[in-house]
Amino acid sequence: MFTVYGKSDSGNCYKVKLALEQLRLPYRWVEVDSTRGETRSAEFLARNPNGKVPTLGLEDGSYLPESNAILYYLAEGTGLLPAERLGRARVLQWMFFEQYSHEPYIAVARFICYYLPPDSPRRAELPRLQERGYQALGVMEQHLGQSSFFSGAGYGIADIALFAYTHCAADGGFDLARYPAVAAWVARVRAQPRFVPLPG
Amino acid sequence: MFTVYGKSDSGNCYKVKLALEQLRLPYRWVEVDSTRGETRSAEFLARNPNGKVPTLGLEDGSYLPESNAILYYLAEGTGLLPAERLGRARVLQWMFFEQYSHEPYIAVARFICYYLPPDSPRRAELPRLQERGYQALGVMEQHLGQSSFFSGAGYGIADIALFAYTHCAADGGFDLARYPAVAAWVARVRAQPRFVPLPG
Repeated sequence: MFTVYGKSDSGNCYKVKLALEQLRLPYRWVEVDSTRGETRSAEFLARNPNGKVPTLGLEDGSYLPESNAILYYLAEGTGLLPAERLGRARVLQWMFFEQYSHEPYIAVARFICYYLPPDSPRRAELPRLQERGYQALGVMEQHLGQSSFFSGAGYGIADIALFAYTHCAADGGFDLARYPAVAAWVARVRAQPRFVPLPG
Repeated sequence: MFTVYGKSDSGNCYKVKLALEQLRLPYRWVEVDSTRGETRSAEFLARNPNGKVPTLGLEDGSYLPESNAILYYLAEGTGLLPAERLGRARVLQWMFFEQYSHEPYIAVARFICYYLPPDSPRRAELPRLQERGYQALGVMEQHLGQSSFFSGAGYGIADIALFAYTHCAADGGFDLARYPAVAAWVARVRAQPRFVPLPG
């Protein structure tokens, strides 16, 4: 059985939960609160020297960090990942897009608005985060003008990766109503079998 | 034949060149200067709506962006990527680490020091970039205490991805002499068959 070391209201951790639920894989969830320093303890750093959740505990006793690497590991050989080589590369294209051009803006804006006090000096970062986050949503909107999903012909792990922080982008001040194709895709993801919402 | 749309002195673009050379795959290189706005032209955005290099032109006329997705695509079925599932996931772990926890600090510090004028106000970002970049080098140093490479038992695409900006980290003010295992790994990568250096 897998063990997920995660923070329940983190989008990156939610990705792993959603995939495990949709793949009907049994798992144990161990709550790790990164906002209280629990990812910097010696015990946690022995599992992931980079000190981040989610980290997946495997049956062989080893650990796998990085949400999108975990998604790929879980999805290989299932319907959540295309079988052919270029299809897999396009899934990775969107997952690297998510970690480089989307999450650092949309998730960080959410973190500042949602977790920090209203007078936090980090609110000064919001205009730049929102500008870049809207650029990422624009790239998604354009793709969704031609395709229903980000994982090839059907739903898969690139959709899970991008859904995690897109569906709650309003928490960071983003207005998804400006992106009708993204809003329709969010609804398509919510309608997938065995969908579970982000806790919190 | 592949077409690489890239900027020759970009580490992300160099990853693709190094992999193509080591895999003995023929390619055509089209220089695209992102610092002159050439990634924002209508012509380029039709190839990659996210407006970034490298972007790989495939034989079927389509395009694949994201340096690490390109590496994975090129390496599948070759000695640069492990054949078994967990080995591939660990390669992806290090490639997502590179794009999220390494490149945004080490490559951006290099960009500020190397491309911007000495009085650029962006030099104020350097202390934070160097702190985070050194954290990433520390994670690499720890891994290299147990393993010779980042791609499993041998050299592969996770090494290419991490080498691209690590070997020239001094351009951004980093002192690699503090990380002897990283420095030894840099030398091991340079000694690989068909190695080519970063131009410039």
